[in-house]
Amino acid sequence: MSLLAVGSVAFDSVRTPYGEVHEILGGSATFFSVTASWFTSVCVVAVVGEDFGDEHLGVFRQRSIDTAGLEKVPGRTFRWRGEYLGDMNSARTLETQLNVFESFVPKIPPSYLTSQFLFLGNIGPALQLNVRRALPNLRASALDTMNYWISGTPDDLAKVLATVEILLINEGEARLLSKENNLKKAAAGIKKLGPRAVVIKRGEHGATLFGPESIFTVPAFLLEEVRDPTGAGDTFAGGFMGHLARTGDLADANLRRAAVYGSVMGSFAVEEFGLGRLLRLTQNEIESRYRDIKNLTHFDA
Amino acid sequence: MSLLAVGSVAFDSVRTPYGEVHEILGGSATFFSVTASWFTSVCVVAVVGEDFGDEHLGVFRQRSIDTAGLEKVPGRTFRWRGEYLGDMNSARTLETQLNVFESFVPKIPPSYLTSQFLFLGNIGPALQLNVRRALPNLRASALDTMNYWISGTPDDLAKVLATVEILLINEGEARLLSKENNLKKAAAGIKKLGPRAVVIKRGEHGATLFGPESIFTVPAFLLEEVRDPTGAGDTFAGGFMGHLARTGDLADANLRRAAVYGSVMGSFAVEEFGLGRLLRLTQNEIESRYRDIKNLTHFDA
Repeated sequence: MSLLAVGSVAFDSVRTPYGEVHEILGGSATFFSVTASWFTSVCVVAVVGEDFGDEHLGVFRQRSIDTAGLEKVPGRTFRWRGEYLGDMNSARTLETQLNVFESFVPKIPPSYLTSQFLFLGNIGPALQLNVRRALPNLRASALDTMNYWISGTPDDLAKVLATVEILLINEGEARLLSKENNLKKAAAGIKKLGPRAVVIKRGEHGATLFGPESIFTVPAFLLEEVRDPTGAGDTFAGGFMGHLARTGDLADANLRRAAVYGSVMGSFAVEEFGLGRLLRLTQNEIESRYRDIKNLTHFDA
Repeated sequence: MSLLAVGSVAFDSVRTPYGEVHEILGGSATFFSVTASWFTSVCVVAVVGEDFGDEHLGVFRQRSIDTAGLEKVPGRTFRWRGEYLGDMNSARTLETQLNVFESFVPKIPPSYLTSQFLFLGNIGPALQLNVRRALPNLRASALDTMNYWISGTPDDLAKVLATVEILLINEGEARLLSKENNLKKAAAGIKKLGPRAVVIKRGEHGATLFGPESIFTVPAFLLEEVRDPTGAGDTFAGGFMGHLARTGDLADANLRRAAVYGSVMGSFAVEEFGLGRLLRLTQNEIESRYRDIKNLTHFDA
């Protein structure tokens, strides 16, 4: 089933202990849609500037992502510059240039209106709500957000939260949103705001799914080298929603599998800078790492 | 099979957001042996002062722990005072009074010499090595240590590490010992020093077992209230070694089960101050939480 992704397309400049890249293709919609394209058909809504060239469009095309909703407007594409130090768990933002992203108003092409799954990447909650309302017949929608919106526009965020089935959020954001330090209480509080499933992303510690019927924890796959964590959260979301859209199955057991695919894809994302590893995958590699995570967590009753 | 524990007996004064206790029974040998007593017969080697009364001895007796090696000497028992703030992941030590622990020399009663499993709690590595050498016919021995010994007496630590099968260590200590930030590389480095299994304890994120044949990750059981983390690491060790001693099985699959029992027991320890919850357990509660962790981590292949 078709999956629609809304979010940012960016040019990222990143420094980590493993090296440095300058203005490579990134952004939440990009990481999400490239990842989800390994699971299902994906269409994207985002805005880019005049500096977004055929080589960038080619990345989406290479993954057969529908770019009818990728709007090109006068100006420069969103830019982010940051660095990771030490334990690689959090980025230090050095520069943000919103550019064309500042006045982004998502426009849904008519051909996208039959999408059954929706991912609302981290953009303003009022914009997220407009997109959600334009798609009344979804099977399921998922939302990402961040501290900036949780603190800055709580009323708008509450409105869109009430319309989505799934919230994907990191640990610190879950605490801020729920005003609860304990994660179990935080997830219970967030569920009262709307979502029936809350996925709390915990970086190198994996993720915890507070599903409709049970709680599930998946670890991060252990790697010897984490080269660039940029996009890992959106990549997790891409694996998670990609699997749900591929199967059309929202039962508890399948949400667990989706969380494992999220962890699988996140582990590939961080192996190389930018989209590098995510563009060079095979289905066999994805399934093999799924089994690796099974082996990492299995024990006899 | 019988399990011998060497470590500290202490009177702990602890403040957490949930309350405050004054001079309650604690210490590594205490938490370990009370926990392991739910799995197997345990004997303890430690030192206490004249202020260690019948009510304290009764705690060991209540759990049928052999206290022939609990030496009482003139002076006061080891005291620790600390507090936990915020996320409860690390204690702030406010005061340490070594007292009789300062001149502790472990003495192994002859009746202990048939023990088949050994836990060397966090004491000086030269003392740990003497104990290890006094017990040449062990099935397996496990070691705990801390930053103080890793930085202060690295040569002594290397000697005892070369003699043990299992190292239980927390995340920061593993990095310090191995001089590797990445946990997979850290564990590989530590294995070269002797242990065939390295268990890295990660607090609220659970633990990772780098076994002889595979890597296994177990989460912490999610609780709504973590009241007092004191002793959680020694309690994890008690569940881990207790299960190994009970079964006598050192195969990879059983090391995994042991790590789950470690997580099970650690989750009970933090529910109340001190030994409170660990003294009121039932076998049914232990097995029920083991199944809870199975349910928390299970997904279909």
